[in-house]
Amino acid sequence: MKDKQFLMIPGPTPVPERALLAMAKHPMGHRSSEFSAIMKEVYQDLKWLFRTEEDVFVYTSSGTGAMEAAIFNLVNPGDKVLSLVMGNFSERWAKIAEMRGADVERISFDWGQAVDPDILRERLDQDINKEIKFVTLIHNETSTGVTNDIQTLVGIIREHGALSVVDGVTSVGAIPVKMDEWGIDVIVSGSQKGFMIPPGLAFLACSKKAWQVHEECKNPSFYFNFKAYKKSAAENTTPYTPNVSLIVALRETLNMMKEEGLDNFYDRHARLAQILREGVRAMGLRLFVEDDAVASRVITAIYPPEGISVPDIRKTLNNEYDIVVANGQAKLKDKIFRMGHLGYVSERDAITALGALESSLLKLGYDAKKQAASVK
Amino acid sequence: MKDKQFLMIPGPTPVPERALLAMAKHPMGHRSSEFSAIMKEVYQDLKWLFRTEEDVFVYTSSGTGAMEAAIFNLVNPGDKVLSLVMGNFSERWAKIAEMRGADVERISFDWGQAVDPDILRERLDQDINKEIKFVTLIHNETSTGVTNDIQTLVGIIREHGALSVVDGVTSVGAIPVKMDEWGIDVIVSGSQKGFMIPPGLAFLACSKKAWQVHEECKNPSFYFNFKAYKKSAAENTTPYTPNVSLIVALRETLNMMKEEGLDNFYDRHARLAQILREGVRAMGLRLFVEDDAVASRVITAIYPPEGISVPDIRKTLNNEYDIVVANGQAKLKDKIFRMGHLGYVSERDAITALGALESSLLKLGYDAKKQAASVK
Repeated sequence: MKDKQFLMIPGPTPVPERALLAMAKHPMGHRSSEFSAIMKEVYQDLKWLFRTEEDVFVYTSSGTGAMEAAIFNLVNPGDKVLSLVMGNFSERWAKIAEMRGADVERISFDWGQAVDPDILRERLDQDINKEIKFVTLIHNETSTGVTNDIQTLVGIIREHGALSVVDGVTSVGAIPVKMDEWGIDVIVSGSQKGFMIPPGLAFLACSKKAWQVHEECKNPSFYFNFKAYKKSAAENTTPYTPNVSLIVALRETLNMMKEEGLDNFYDRHARLAQILREGVRAMGLRLFVEDDAVASRVITAIYPPEGISVPDIRKTLNNEYDIVVANGQAKLKDKIFRMGHLGYVSERDAITALGALESSLLKLGYDAKKQAASVK
Repeated sequence: MKDKQFLMIPGPTPVPERALLAMAKHPMGHRSSEFSAIMKEVYQDLKWLFRTEEDVFVYTSSGTGAMEAAIFNLVNPGDKVLSLVMGNFSERWAKIAEMRGADVERISFDWGQAVDPDILRERLDQDINKEIKFVTLIHNETSTGVTNDIQTLVGIIREHGALSVVDGVTSVGAIPVKMDEWGIDVIVSGSQKGFMIPPGLAFLACSKKAWQVHEECKNPSFYFNFKAYKKSAAENTTPYTPNVSLIVALRETLNMMKEEGLDNFYDRHARLAQILREGVRAMGLRLFVEDDAVASRVITAIYPPEGISVPDIRKTLNNEYDIVVANGQAKLKDKIFRMGHLGYVSERDAITALGALESSLLKLGYDAKKQAASVK
């Protein structure tokens, strides 16, 4: 039943009916008082979600657009950028900074590992002349299913004095993020993740310290320009025509999030991960990230059983049970498959996914029950 | 009846039901074969619409994003850019190029006038050392309701050797644009205009000559990067998560455009402008652009009758007849009002708008019938 297809990829994620129906309405004029009233609510709720007193800019772009916004509003050619890389998306910061002409140094960690705070501290301690102006990092690395301890890492970066530039694309709205309390300088996110709406909007918040650095940025982005967006945020509008349909949908999902409550949706995502991890282990499968302490709450990466291919598992889940899961990325392609449980996902969905996975594997010749019994 | 509100602003424009219903569907995975099949059709149809053999990139952004894409993929700091300015949007090219660090020279024409080809030729003839590398211009200037003779202007730019960089945001899909035949180097457009879908997608096509200039661009945009989008276009995908909902809606409206036929929707827009212009004149009102030869086919700017304010006209049209029209922009604010007739607009809509305008003016104390009689 293709119409019942359920996405368990790390984005796009499932969208609640309230948001879908809002999308089906005729767009309203973006310079109307009606739309400004919506923007006002959205801006307020985004501050609540990002746990910040700063403005949260709303860009009409994908999450990568907000990453470009960060780099092209802060970094000058030749600036020294330290990029903490442990997967495909944390690597993207380094690539964007290189394209901007920055002097990029990477510290790489094995895919499947979190950033080691001691290694970061050691590198920053060596930088006695404070040449490193920016440290880029990711909160939740979607390509591997690893969540970094951002609070600790950002604390170390603050001590050094560099700006922390954080990819929160798959964390905001699902994993606790406390921008102001933790002292994050810049954080970006995207709509098709914890925000429960389709792709097409991205978000960025920056600290006062980052704002000062922006003031010295030469030839910044025009489309993503911090000053233009800050001015517009104060006027409950956007500098250029925004995706009004997605913003109206976002108002719906932000209302849903407020109804559920911050702690409740954080807890729900934690439970979803726990259900999947325990279920997968009970089937005798190996998790790509063994360490529960760094395992992502929003995406679970799993090794296929020996002799069964990742494409076959994905195909069977899709064809037989209308569940779409993701392949591994880059060097992990066909090595792991990844189940997203991010946004509009319930415990029922997690249990359903486990059942479907067990049945799919059985069809492919892997009997999870027997396997589990033999392990006992 | 707020629910029946009809937008006659230059964007967002009305969206057909087929597209709205497509927007209300659960988003599909953007790396699925299903979605690639849709992208393939969309890419083909965009070439048809832009009248080009080149790839048309699909950006998740507003039209201004595609303008940034053009400048940040072609222009190096210090490059000489000539900007032909005759309104708020043609001015935007100059601002983006300045933000990029280009050496921008403007030739300004009175608001309400088209670019004079002789003045352009004269300036380019003076440039014997070929210092001018880019000429930016607009096809349809939305802030004033003037359409430039792009074919002639682009021809003059070609003779000189500079690249022509054209804003086709409110022209593509409504006013004839023949990219390859006319030799346009770069043209951009946006989804909430002739494309009949909500805002959130932008389009860009560039010539082989522009591509060579891109090859020499230092520190280009990452998010809007020409090379990334060209590679993805060849693979029927996009480099970053696109707005899948809008792309699915776009497939619907491109199908509608093919069903109507290129010449037919060009003719329809011409008829809409004619209906409005003749109707407005018959009411004894003054058009902002008197010259029919340069008057826009997609937006009509009108002076209010003496003693009646633009805000009152807009308010009455909105409150009494659920029709939203635009104010003037910048120095034309409260001086003119603008009726958009772009995209999903029929002759019935144009006649309705005229009737509503006549009734609104009557409520405000202006009797168009008497006025018309007195003119005779």
